[in-house]
Amino acid sequence: MGSNKNLPDLITDLPSPCFLVDLNRAKLNTSRMLETCKKLGVQLRPHMKTHKTIELAVLQTGGKKQHITVSTIQEAEFYAENGFDDILYAYPITADKITRCVNIANSHNFHVLFDSHDAIEALSNAALDSGKKWSVLLSVDTGDNREGALWNSEDAVELVKKVVSIDTIRFQGLYTHDGHAYECKDEEELRKSGDETVEKIQHLKNRLQKEGIDCITVGLGSTPSCAKPSEKFSAMTELHPGNYIFFDYEQYMGGVCGIDEIACRVMTRVISHCPSDSHLLVDCGFTAISHDGMTKQDTLPFGFCIFQDNPNLRMVNVNQEVGIVKAADGKLDFGKYPIGTILYIYPFHSCAAAAMHPVYYVHEGDKVVGMYKPTRGW
Amino acid sequence: MGSNKNLPDLITDLPSPCFLVDLNRAKLNTSRMLETCKKLGVQLRPHMKTHKTIELAVLQTGGKKQHITVSTIQEAEFYAENGFDDILYAYPITADKITRCVNIANSHNFHVLFDSHDAIEALSNAALDSGKKWSVLLSVDTGDNREGALWNSEDAVELVKKVVSIDTIRFQGLYTHDGHAYECKDEEELRKSGDETVEKIQHLKNRLQKEGIDCITVGLGSTPSCAKPSEKFSAMTELHPGNYIFFDYEQYMGGVCGIDEIACRVMTRVISHCPSDSHLLVDCGFTAISHDGMTKQDTLPFGFCIFQDNPNLRMVNVNQEVGIVKAADGKLDFGKYPIGTILYIYPFHSCAAAAMHPVYYVHEGDKVVGMYKPTRGW
Repeated sequence: MGSNKNLPDLITDLPSPCFLVDLNRAKLNTSRMLETCKKLGVQLRPHMKTHKTIELAVLQTGGKKQHITVSTIQEAEFYAENGFDDILYAYPITADKITRCVNIANSHNFHVLFDSHDAIEALSNAALDSGKKWSVLLSVDTGDNREGALWNSEDAVELVKKVVSIDTIRFQGLYTHDGHAYECKDEEELRKSGDETVEKIQHLKNRLQKEGIDCITVGLGSTPSCAKPSEKFSAMTELHPGNYIFFDYEQYMGGVCGIDEIACRVMTRVISHCPSDSHLLVDCGFTAISHDGMTKQDTLPFGFCIFQDNPNLRMVNVNQEVGIVKAADGKLDFGKYPIGTILYIYPFHSCAAAAMHPVYYVHEGDKVVGMYKPTRGW
Repeated sequence: MGSNKNLPDLITDLPSPCFLVDLNRAKLNTSRMLETCKKLGVQLRPHMKTHKTIELAVLQTGGKKQHITVSTIQEAEFYAENGFDDILYAYPITADKITRCVNIANSHNFHVLFDSHDAIEALSNAALDSGKKWSVLLSVDTGDNREGALWNSEDAVELVKKVVSIDTIRFQGLYTHDGHAYECKDEEELRKSGDETVEKIQHLKNRLQKEGIDCITVGLGSTPSCAKPSEKFSAMTELHPGNYIFFDYEQYMGGVCGIDEIACRVMTRVISHCPSDSHLLVDCGFTAISHDGMTKQDTLPFGFCIFQDNPNLRMVNVNQEVGIVKAADGKLDFGKYPIGTILYIYPFHSCAAAAMHPVYYVHEGDKVVGMYKPTRGW
């Protein structure tokens, strides 16, 4: 019996579809990242966006409930209300989101990102309690081309100078998402990309130092860049990966993890046979696994997702509540998959699959040991 | 002030991203479908899967809270507990899901689908209260190639004969999803496809009649086939579309609705400018709009989704919490979209976008008039 009275003993008795978290694998993944950061002498500030639960956040912080990264104000409030502190809201701050940030900043160690003069203006217009200052980090684009001030731009320096000139704001340092590490194909590329990112962010740090501006924090994120970092990473003060707690098919394809390190799966059952079209239906639709990865399915070796221990199965399409499964070699053996057969799926993107589920079922081996509830919304 | 104390007066003061329901448009869409069914002399049994809320279900049933279709047991329980009755669980029933169905079937008018001998066996093994019988409909494949017994197959007849031979089961009739109507390109194709589906299902009904088996219910679904039905549809006993309450970009592209009939939007704000890559960021990631439609974006006239009143904007990618927006003509006018600008998005698939949101904000014109909470999970 799990920690919840209504939970069955075995995962094979769970309702499907459902999201499974392999607790022992998650513990290995989180303790390894803590160890990696300890060796480098940098602070781990894990990202919560992948799971958004209290229990897994406790694992990621080594029980300390300190130093976390979040992607929404809802997450920030959720963790703040549940005893977590030193929270980085890693999102370009804008005026519309300031009011709720004020509340958190007044009661917790709380940091926000800025990447524009609009953001600085919004922060300077929002007063904190007497004696309190906004703690801000510049969001830096180190090659990701998504967000932040370009690492080698005059803009970056000007933005920081502006912030430093404002009494009610404390410039804390630099933050880069480093999302372009997702484009790497193997460990060698990952190391090269990670090292380049460290060099770029250090370059900006040094430029600011010449202007007399110190960076207390210099942070770098993304699981691909942090999973197997070189010694150069010790030049950073903190790392903020998130996906590594679960990993997924995408990380596996990028050489970031082994297939046996993936700590989450969607459990599904065969619900129908369609011999006329040589497919079977499973009770895993897009509401259980998301569409993430679909645009890449033709170039992925197992298609859109991986059916554990069934390399010949391909999820060719997902509707709202059903998935359509064919055989890669065209020869679907219906006798091997009678109705009711349980299948386990490694999702392409664990953050996206997890986001579809109101609860996660947690297991050790085949035993159900708990049910975690993530926060949702904004 | 809306019905909830914490709601702002105006939609422009809502947090973003958020899911907006235009109440007046939803009322028009639902009253029109009720009228269509009344004229045809068929029962409307609307599908709840698109929104999964009580309030919109009341609209869809014309206030009667009777005759609905659901896609999950969670929905069935949610509506049963909230005063709804005569519920069709339109999903191939399997042994693992029977126990929870027993509870609903004992207390409500409840119907399930079957499409296999396994399903019949599972139903015959599950006892209802004394005097109660399972009410079942055969799931029929009329060209969709997804699920159900083929309309012109011996299998279909054999399955029904088997069911009729079992004392504890009452054969109620036939059900077809008619999902292939989504492949139609215009109104003419839709009518042709719909009429063919009616003919196919009537063919099976007539074959069964020759065997002495009556179909009390003959139901047909999918919004494309039901939005503009021909008179032939009066041969059916009920229709069970769902998406029509909101419609979406996909329905618009298929000629099912006008752009002004779409009753839901995702509201988002511009949060960052990236001049070096000529894009802007909005606070609508995949957690707010889903990835549905992404695989078709190259063939869609407005890309992955439609920015209302901004036909030049293209959502080129979505990450977890941000969307990357470029100009179709390559010339993004940043001055036109300052940080904080509110944009409204018509999603490709409203069922998929709605599924990402823990609440919907309901409005009349610019006024917020309520907040609806959908049920989630299985």
